[in-house]
Amino acid sequence: MTNRPRRTLKADTITMAHGSGCKAMRDLIEDLFVGAFDNPDLNPLEDQARFDLAALSAQGGQLAFTTDSYVVDPLFFPGGNIGTLAVNGTVNDLAVSGAIPKYLSCGMIIEEGMAVSELRQIVQSMRQTADAAGVTIVTGDTKVVPKGKGDKLFINTSGIGVIKAGVNISAQRCRPGDKVIVNGFIGDHGAAILNARGDLALDVELKTDCQPLHSLVQAMLEVCPDIHAIRDASRGGVATVVNEFAESSALSIRLLEEALPVRDEVRGVCEILGLDALYFANEGKLVAVVPGEQAEAVLAAMQAHPAGRGSAIIGEVLAGPAGRVLVQTGFGGERILDMLVGEQLPRIC
Amino acid sequence: MTNRPRRTLKADTITMAHGSGCKAMRDLIEDLFVGAFDNPDLNPLEDQARFDLAALSAQGGQLAFTTDSYVVDPLFFPGGNIGTLAVNGTVNDLAVSGAIPKYLSCGMIIEEGMAVSELRQIVQSMRQTADAAGVTIVTGDTKVVPKGKGDKLFINTSGIGVIKAGVNISAQRCRPGDKVIVNGFIGDHGAAILNARGDLALDVELKTDCQPLHSLVQAMLEVCPDIHAIRDASRGGVATVVNEFAESSALSIRLLEEALPVRDEVRGVCEILGLDALYFANEGKLVAVVPGEQAEAVLAAMQAHPAGRGSAIIGEVLAGPAGRVLVQTGFGGERILDMLVGEQLPRIC
Repeated sequence: MTNRPRRTLKADTITMAHGSGCKAMRDLIEDLFVGAFDNPDLNPLEDQARFDLAALSAQGGQLAFTTDSYVVDPLFFPGGNIGTLAVNGTVNDLAVSGAIPKYLSCGMIIEEGMAVSELRQIVQSMRQTADAAGVTIVTGDTKVVPKGKGDKLFINTSGIGVIKAGVNISAQRCRPGDKVIVNGFIGDHGAAILNARGDLALDVELKTDCQPLHSLVQAMLEVCPDIHAIRDASRGGVATVVNEFAESSALSIRLLEEALPVRDEVRGVCEILGLDALYFANEGKLVAVVPGEQAEAVLAAMQAHPAGRGSAIIGEVLAGPAGRVLVQTGFGGERILDMLVGEQLPRIC
Repeated sequence: MTNRPRRTLKADTITMAHGSGCKAMRDLIEDLFVGAFDNPDLNPLEDQARFDLAALSAQGGQLAFTTDSYVVDPLFFPGGNIGTLAVNGTVNDLAVSGAIPKYLSCGMIIEEGMAVSELRQIVQSMRQTADAAGVTIVTGDTKVVPKGKGDKLFINTSGIGVIKAGVNISAQRCRPGDKVIVNGFIGDHGAAILNARGDLALDVELKTDCQPLHSLVQAMLEVCPDIHAIRDASRGGVATVVNEFAESSALSIRLLEEALPVRDEVRGVCEILGLDALYFANEGKLVAVVPGEQAEAVLAAMQAHPAGRGSAIIGEVLAGPAGRVLVQTGFGGERILDMLVGEQLPRIC
């Protein structure tokens, strides 16, 4: 890179010129993104990041690769914003494969007229969140669409990570007798977004649970290298994940309603709206399926980790009908917990 | 995967439910995406694709990683659609580093109300384009935003590829005496999109030049492993690329106007609008900077390749002022070719 001073952005709002590949776009990228994301692996002069493959191979046996777009509404909410979500969400999609997340890309689709100050705040959150998760944002792209053709900001992050040899986590590996574990209170993110939209007019503190999960997963793998399945319970919530496990493994899963960790405030939101916290999105919660005889040891390791203090065994895998998920209620009854057919909460992430 | 029949999509238009993480979304993904993208590396039951790192290492020394979002308007245009662009665009961002593109991700942001038939056509184009480029789409994500909060469809593709040991292509490596080569007619894509918008009312055939460039780059590297710089001339056109080269290498570049390959039809569009084809976007054109003594050999290799038939030497690198680009006109004069300050053609890709 030449030693000329970095360009700075003079505009207060994003214009179409900021997406045109011209000087205005370079100013935006150099000021906001290069300024915030600066790291030895980010080369803003090239269209792609490059890494030594031998160095990656030395860290593990498999490369994990994932992508997610974020369209959450509103952009800012208690405990985070679209930027924190875009980093931790993709970190967690890697983490649940057992991967150690390494590098993220960042594709921004900005609506003309967005305040530069908001964009700057989001980009800075991304940098802080990436630092906290130990990943670097190494390549990016910016597009601008005319006013009315987007909604302020959509972010895509893709990520790559490295899975150590011997780790084999898959939704298809659930076995009868396995225990189902969650790492804490469920439904916080969904309830926080609903509340942030102002539709509820509730006077409660609801915060997203957005957090990275890879170091928790690594702590779990240390105790039990043969964890069968892990998935983060984002869109569609815990209910969707356990249904996917039951279907992929062609087994049944029974959850215990009384064992589900749900905050009183979230339970309150659910009661008002007639919704079930099991379907609420989480952004820092995973569901793990663990061999029964190692469940207590894994649980203890999780509870000893900052991201797993509230961990609980919430159910077990049964040899029953393929794909059936039951919830045993406090009164000894059982109800079927299906996947939702239609939407519950649009634009939750 | 269980052997149950694949879900099919019954709806004619996309609804919010198709982005909710529920059954409707699964139907959409299984019918459209899994149906079209089916390949051994796509595991729709997991949130991430996984690859053997030793196998990747055996193919080269470096991993290349890139991302691009596509917001082109209109979605369909002569010679392609947003899907062909999303595949070849990211293939080319990898290709110009000398990488052999391997795997793509696909993140879709769909506006509520989009016709399923259009989405299906785009997804099928993506599959065909990926097949033709020798890459596989291995992981994806789908979001739906309410009507009026998007514009039918935005696609992000991220990609990874492998760069062979010894290849070192960089915008900073231009040297005085290097020749500048382009692989054919410039400005076709920009002119085709402008014409497809119907603003010009021209009775001409203008087609995008959208094509993958990695096998052309490999053919060039075979003749000259020490190619200094290559970049695809997409948004901002050839003018932006040569300006980036001149700035990154702190040198001057002089282009020869008479050597620039421009179709008569594109020249006509430029004259009507008072625009310069050097700034028009391309989706299958690269600019290469090659040691002067090997320029003729590289040119011959390019002209022998289907993606380089119209290749031409269009200029040279000079020891002049850092970052200055000149165009020598047919009359012996010179003009400065700067980067555009504002936008020329919004949503061109």
